[in-house]
Amino acid sequence: MKYFEDFVAGEEVDVGEYRMTADDLGAFALAWDPQPHHVDADAAARSTFGGVIASGVHLLAITVRMLVTLGEPVAIVAALGWDDIRFRAPVRAGDTLRLRRRCLDVRPSSSNPQRGIVRNELLLTNQEGVVVLSYRDSLLVLRKPSGDVVR
Amino acid sequence: MKYFEDFVAGEEVDVGEYRMTADDLGAFALAWDPQPHHVDADAAARSTFGGVIASGVHLLAITVRMLVTLGEPVAIVAALGWDDIRFRAPVRAGDTLRLRRRCLDVRPSSSNPQRGIVRNELLLTNQEGVVVLSYRDSLLVLRKPSGDVVR
Repeated sequence: MKYFEDFVAGEEVDVGEYRMTADDLGAFALAWDPQPHHVDADAAARSTFGGVIASGVHLLAITVRMLVTLGEPVAIVAALGWDDIRFRAPVRAGDTLRLRRRCLDVRPSSSNPQRGIVRNELLLTNQEGVVVLSYRDSLLVLRKPSGDVVR
Repeated sequence: MKYFEDFVAGEEVDVGEYRMTADDLGAFALAWDPQPHHVDADAAARSTFGGVIASGVHLLAITVRMLVTLGEPVAIVAALGWDDIRFRAPVRAGDTLRLRRRCLDVRPSSSNPQRGIVRNELLLTNQEGVVVLSYRDSLLVLRKPSGDVVR
């Protein structure tokens, strides 16, 4: 389990990769973001993107899934928020996405000594190294449980 | 179709409501955010929330779905980004969520006279009127097509 003390400002981690399939892209968009450029191949071909692209909230969900399921679990109390989410380039079926997390800063909670706040920058890139999504998260994380004090 | 000119700074719109079911909450969390406080009733009961709560990215997806499927479609070219996403209160199965959109500002694109940029504040509240999620979006929207000029 990764605790507050295990986050170090400046540390960069390669979280892993995710392959976007046409089925995945289409199913998510149909359920949550059925705009023509996500679900309608003909309309998408006439759009500024020239073809179907993934929904932005799908890309966010993919980063959450990768953070939660790949690597060591984090002792998260709660996600406080996300900042500066930018959809920087379109993602299409067949793209292979890679997520990197860089720890920006850490600070103990002023109200609860068992918790701390960690801020990270997340960068999702495609197989050509182009950043497709960037944002910062702010997490409330448990501090490492201290052992019994030897007397 | 709602174009750039149809957005007016200061205007507030009641987008609609969404009922969160246990099945919906569980299925989304299992697929995209399988943290214990979203998918494991026993672990969730021991968490700071005292029971299962919805994933934050699920709440975002719900707002996107409501914006896309309820009311008049918007001539969106692309979503540019989201800012200041804050998860303000937990959402549980059985909650009825209501989304309000307030237009913050509008400006014509400096690079393309057929487009404009619209910024909105989104507020998702529960049946008790408590804000559970807030954020701002930034959308690239088509300007209204002009008819032929009468000569």
